[in-house]
Amino acid sequence: MPAFTRITIVGVGLIGGSIGLALRRRGLARWVRGVVRRTASGEVARACGAVDEATANLVEGVQGADLIVVATPVDQIVDTVRSVAYLNPQALVTDVGSTKALICRLLREPAPADLPQRRPGPGQFVGSHPLAGDHRSGPEHARADLLEGRMVVVTPEEASPPAAVERLALFWRELGAEVELLDPEEHDRALAATSHLPHLVASALAAATPETWLRFTARGWSDTTRIAASSPELWSQIFTQNRSAVIDAVQRLQHALDALRDAVAREDRPKLLHLLEEAKRRRDAVGD
Amino acid sequence: MPAFTRITIVGVGLIGGSIGLALRRRGLARWVRGVVRRTASGEVARACGAVDEATANLVEGVQGADLIVVATPVDQIVDTVRSVAYLNPQALVTDVGSTKALICRLLREPAPADLPQRRPGPGQFVGSHPLAGDHRSGPEHARADLLEGRMVVVTPEEASPPAAVERLALFWRELGAEVELLDPEEHDRALAATSHLPHLVASALAAATPETWLRFTARGWSDTTRIAASSPELWSQIFTQNRSAVIDAVQRLQHALDALRDAVAREDRPKLLHLLEEAKRRRDAVGD
Repeated sequence: MPAFTRITIVGVGLIGGSIGLALRRRGLARWVRGVVRRTASGEVARACGAVDEATANLVEGVQGADLIVVATPVDQIVDTVRSVAYLNPQALVTDVGSTKALICRLLREPAPADLPQRRPGPGQFVGSHPLAGDHRSGPEHARADLLEGRMVVVTPEEASPPAAVERLALFWRELGAEVELLDPEEHDRALAATSHLPHLVASALAAATPETWLRFTARGWSDTTRIAASSPELWSQIFTQNRSAVIDAVQRLQHALDALRDAVAREDRPKLLHLLEEAKRRRDAVGD
Repeated sequence: MPAFTRITIVGVGLIGGSIGLALRRRGLARWVRGVVRRTASGEVARACGAVDEATANLVEGVQGADLIVVATPVDQIVDTVRSVAYLNPQALVTDVGSTKALICRLLREPAPADLPQRRPGPGQFVGSHPLAGDHRSGPEHARADLLEGRMVVVTPEEASPPAAVERLALFWRELGAEVELLDPEEHDRALAATSHLPHLVASALAAATPETWLRFTARGWSDTTRIAASSPELWSQIFTQNRSAVIDAVQRLQHALDALRDAVAREDRPKLLHLLEEAKRRRDAVGD
C-alpha cells in the first residue's frame, strides 16, 4: 500500500509535473490532481501525462486528497500551504521549495487575521526539497525519472509527529529518491553552499564575460555557466529567502578565489598546485 | 590535396591523439607519426589508432614531416618548438597550447646560446589553439570528432607569411573546425575570460564547498564545478603563463559577484532580477 493514494499537486511545473508523471507511471496513486493558475496550463499538464485531472480552483483541487504537494515558486509557498491546510485539514501538506528556514518559520507564526487561513498544525505540514531540477522550467520538461536516484531532503521541526515524517519519507522513496532528514536551518546553510552559490557564481561568470568574446567560449564555459540560464524570477526569490546563508557562502567563495588569484599573481606554483589539487579532490569525490 | 600530408605530433595526449585520430579517420595524411616520452605511451597511441607510428626519439620523429604539431603541456612548448624547428627547418610548426602571448614572445627572442636550438624563423612557427578539450586527459580519451564544429584560434604575428597562416588554417578546417585569426595578446585576453576564468572559478567553488555538505550537491553544482577535475599541473601552467589577463578576468568576476551579493544583502529584488536577466541573456546567446 503506497504512503499516499490521493494526491494533489499545486503548481504543475517542472518539479510538480515530474512528481505527477512518476506517480502515474509507477501506479502509486488512485488519482493525481493538478491545481494550476490558468486553465490552459491544466490542459498542458494533462496532455503531458502529469495529472489525471486539473483545475484552476484551489478549493475543489484539494478536496479528498491525503497528500498535497505545494510546488509553486518559493515566494508563494507560505500562503499556499496556509490555504490548503485550511481547506483540507485531513491531508498532509509538503512543499518542494529550495529554501526551508523562512518558510517553516513563517508557517509557525499566526497567519494574518484578515485571511481565510490559519497556522497549519505541526502534523499538517512537513517541508521537503527534492535536489533535482533543470535550468529549464515548465511541465513540458517534466520527466518521470527526475527524482530517481536523487536526494530529497525532508525538514522536520521539533513538533513534527514522527509518523507523518516517516510517511512523507516513504512517499519520496516510492518515487525512487533517497531521503535525508535535516532541520530547516541546517538545510538552508548546506544548500546555500551546494546549490544557491553555484547559481550565483554561474550568473556572475556569464555576466563577467564580455559579449564580443562569447564566440570564444567552449565546453568549460558552457558547463560552468549552464545554470545561469535558470529563471531569474525563481532564483531572485530563492537568494533573498536564504539571504544570510547565501552571503556566508559567497564569502567562503571569495576567500577561495582570493587564494587562487594571489598564487597566480605571485607565480607561486607549489601553492597554486596545492589549491587546484584540493579542489579536484572534492570534485572527484562527487563524480559525474 | 590536403594542406599537409606528413604530420608529426609531439605529445600524443587528449588533443594530440584526437588530431591524429581525425587525420587518419579522414584519410588526410600519408602518415601521422607520434613523438612520445615513454615507449609505452607510443604503444597506447598506436593501439588507439591515433598514429601510424610512434617514437620516443625527437630527431627521428620529425624527419620528413611537412607539419609538426606540438601538443605538449604549455610549459614545454617553447623548448619543443625551438628543437623541432632546428631539427626540421622545412616543416611548418604549430602548437595547441591554451596560452599564446608568452609562447610567441619567447619564440621571437634569441634562444639560449648553449642549446642546440635556434629561434625559428617567422615562416616556421605559427601558433594555434583548438577550443576543445575535456576535463580528462590522455590518448585513451581522444576522439576523432573532438574538433568537429569547434573553433581553432590561429595566432599569426606581424612577420608571419600569409601563405603559411592560410595553409595552417586550411589544415584545421580539414579536421572539421572553424578557424578565427587573433593576435596572441588578444587571444590571451579573450581566453582568460572564456576559459581560464571558468577553470579558476570552478576550482574555487569546489574548494569552497564544505566536505560534510558534498552529499547535498546536485546537477547544478556538478555542472558548475566539472572542470575543477582537470589536471592541476596543466592548469597551474596555464594560469601563470597568462597571469595578467587571468588577474584582470578575476577582477571582472569579483565585480559581478559583488553586485549580486549586494543586491541579495539589500533584498533589492528589482536590481537582483535585472542582474540575473542580464547573465541569462549572455548564457542563452551561447546555447548548449
